[in-house]
Amino acid sequence: MQPKIRIGIAGYGNLGRGVEMAIAQSPDMQLVGVFSRRDPASVRLLNADVPVYAQDSIAQFQDQIDVLILCGGSKNDLPEQGPAMAALFNTVDSFDTHAMIPEYYAAIDQAANPAGKTAILSVGWDPGLFSLNRLYGEAILPEGATYTFWGKGLSQGHSDAVRRVDGVKAGVQYTIPAEAAIERVRNGELPELTTREKHKRECYVVLEEGADAQAVEQSIVSMPHYFAEYDTSVTFISEEQLQREHAAMPHGGVVIRSGTSSAGTTQVMEYTLKLGSNPEFTAAVLVAYARAAWRLNQQGIVGAQTVLDVAPGLLSPKSPEALRKELL
Amino acid sequence: MQPKIRIGIAGYGNLGRGVEMAIAQSPDMQLVGVFSRRDPASVRLLNADVPVYAQDSIAQFQDQIDVLILCGGSKNDLPEQGPAMAALFNTVDSFDTHAMIPEYYAAIDQAANPAGKTAILSVGWDPGLFSLNRLYGEAILPEGATYTFWGKGLSQGHSDAVRRVDGVKAGVQYTIPAEAAIERVRNGELPELTTREKHKRECYVVLEEGADAQAVEQSIVSMPHYFAEYDTSVTFISEEQLQREHAAMPHGGVVIRSGTSSAGTTQVMEYTLKLGSNPEFTAAVLVAYARAAWRLNQQGIVGAQTVLDVAPGLLSPKSPEALRKELL
Repeated sequence: MQPKIRIGIAGYGNLGRGVEMAIAQSPDMQLVGVFSRRDPASVRLLNADVPVYAQDSIAQFQDQIDVLILCGGSKNDLPEQGPAMAALFNTVDSFDTHAMIPEYYAAIDQAANPAGKTAILSVGWDPGLFSLNRLYGEAILPEGATYTFWGKGLSQGHSDAVRRVDGVKAGVQYTIPAEAAIERVRNGELPELTTREKHKRECYVVLEEGADAQAVEQSIVSMPHYFAEYDTSVTFISEEQLQREHAAMPHGGVVIRSGTSSAGTTQVMEYTLKLGSNPEFTAAVLVAYARAAWRLNQQGIVGAQTVLDVAPGLLSPKSPEALRKELL
Repeated sequence: MQPKIRIGIAGYGNLGRGVEMAIAQSPDMQLVGVFSRRDPASVRLLNADVPVYAQDSIAQFQDQIDVLILCGGSKNDLPEQGPAMAALFNTVDSFDTHAMIPEYYAAIDQAANPAGKTAILSVGWDPGLFSLNRLYGEAILPEGATYTFWGKGLSQGHSDAVRRVDGVKAGVQYTIPAEAAIERVRNGELPELTTREKHKRECYVVLEEGADAQAVEQSIVSMPHYFAEYDTSVTFISEEQLQREHAAMPHGGVVIRSGTSSAGTTQVMEYTLKLGSNPEFTAAVLVAYARAAWRLNQQGIVGAQTVLDVAPGLLSPKSPEALRKELL
C-alpha cells in the first residue's frame, strides 16, 4: 500500500473548511495541519485532532507536507502567497482572476521550477472544470462557438472583491444568467452575446459605520475584471439580514459548445454543474488535483501546471488498470 | 510554423468518412491517404484529390504517415488490425467493447511499445468523453454515484454487431433511455438501477434471402456484452424501409455524478451530448486525439494510452500559452 499523501491547508475560511471536509472523504490522504495568519488558538477545525499552526512557521514543515493547498483569495492573498509557497512546497490553488492568469502563471513557474516543486494553479470549476470543457469543445468541434453561463449563484471571488472595498463590512455577490440567452444557444442559434447580455450581478452589502454608500457603490460597479463589464446592482442591507438571507453558498453554471461537423449536422456538448455549496465543491476539486500534483512531482514534472496540463487519470486514487476496467 | 500532422485513414465507412470531414476542419493536419480492403478504384472520397490505397500496401507508408486513424469495427476488425497497425504506426482507434478493453489494451501495448509507437485506444464519446466525465465525477465527489444514460440514438457498435449476425443483410440498433430513471437521478434520489431498468434496445433488421428469422432474433438478443443484459426488440423490415426511415445516425446521452461534499450538501455534475451524427462526432474526437498521439510520440511517450492518460491541452492546436490566456 502507498503511504498516505500528507496535506497542509494554508488559510482556513470557507474554502479551507471545504478542503478539510474533502480530505476526510479521501482515504489516501492525511491532513497534517492547518496554517493560519490568525492566532492558532482561535481557529476551530471540524476535526479538533488536527493541529493549527501559525502561517509564519510553515517553512519548518517542508519535510512533513507533500502538498500544500492554498485557500486564500485571488485578489490580495494568492499573488504573494502563491509564488512564496511554491518555492517551498508542491501547491494547488484556486486563483480565479482570469485576466491575470498568464502573469500569475509566470510568477508561480519562476518560484516552483528551481525548487523542484509542482504547482497547479487556477484549480476549481471556473477556472478549472469549465476551462476543460471549453477546451474539449473547441478541440473536438473546431467550427462552432462556446458559451459559458454562470449561476444563479454566489460567487466567492466576486464576493471577496466586494468585501475588499473600503467601507464594506460584509457582503455577497450573486451572478444571474440570462435564461433567454441560454435557450437561444441550446436551440443552435449560435447567437453573438455581449458579456452584459449574458449575466447580471447583484451585490448585497453591509456598510462599515460611517462609510459613504455612494463611494462604495461606485468602487464596486467600476471595478475592472470583476464588475465594470456587467450591469451590477448594489443593495445595502443590515448585518442581520445578510446572516439570515444570504448564508448559503450555492452556485453552478453551464458550458455549451455548439458546432457543426459537416454542413447541416449540429453537435452540442453541454456541461452543467448544480452546486449546493460553491466553496465545498471548489475544495473537492482542489483536493483531487492535490493528488495529481503529488504524482506529477514524483514523476519529476515540476513547475507551474494548470488543469489543461494534467492527465485525468492522475486525479483518481484508483490504479490505471482499475480505471480502464471500471470507467473507460 | 510547425509542419502539418500527416494522417492516414484505415477503413472508409461512416467513421472513416467522418474522419475525412474532421481533418478538413483541422488546418494543422493533412490527409495523406485512405487505406481500404476494397478495390481502391471503387472507393469514392469526399475530396477526390486524396488518394486511396490498398490496405495491404500500408507498410510502405511508414515514413509518410504520422498518425493512422483506425476506422474499423470493434467486433471483427480492430482486435486484429489494432495491434498489427500499432506495430507500424502511431494509431488512434475507437474500440468500444467495454468488457474487452483490458485485453485489447494489453495487445496494443505489446505491439506499440517495442516499436516506439504511441497508440491511443477506445477514443470517442463512450468509451471516451463519457469515461472522462465518469472519472472526474468520482475523483471529485468520492461519496456519490455515477449514472450513464445513452440515447435515444443509433449505436454504431451495436448496429455493427447486429450486421455481423449470420442471416442479417442490413440493420440498425437504437438505444432508448428510460426518462423516468433520469429524472430520479436528477432529483438526487441516488436510485439503484439495473442495466435493464435504464435502457432498452430496439433493432430494425433486413434479412438475407432465405434466412431463419427466429434464429437471427435469438442470435441478437442473446449476444453477450451487446444485448444479453437488455430488453431487446427485433423488428424485421424491408431494405427500402431501412433506407427511408433509418438513414440518419443521431445519438447522445448523459453522464451524471450526484454526490455529497458534506452532510446534506448535494453537488451534481452533468455532461450531455446531443449528436446530429454519431459517426461524425466520434470521428471528430478521434482526430483531436490523433493530434495528441503525435505530440505524445514526439515527447517519447509510447505504448498503449487511453483518454484517461492524455492531458487535455494536447488535444488543441493552440499553444499552452494561448490556451491559458483564452480558455482557462
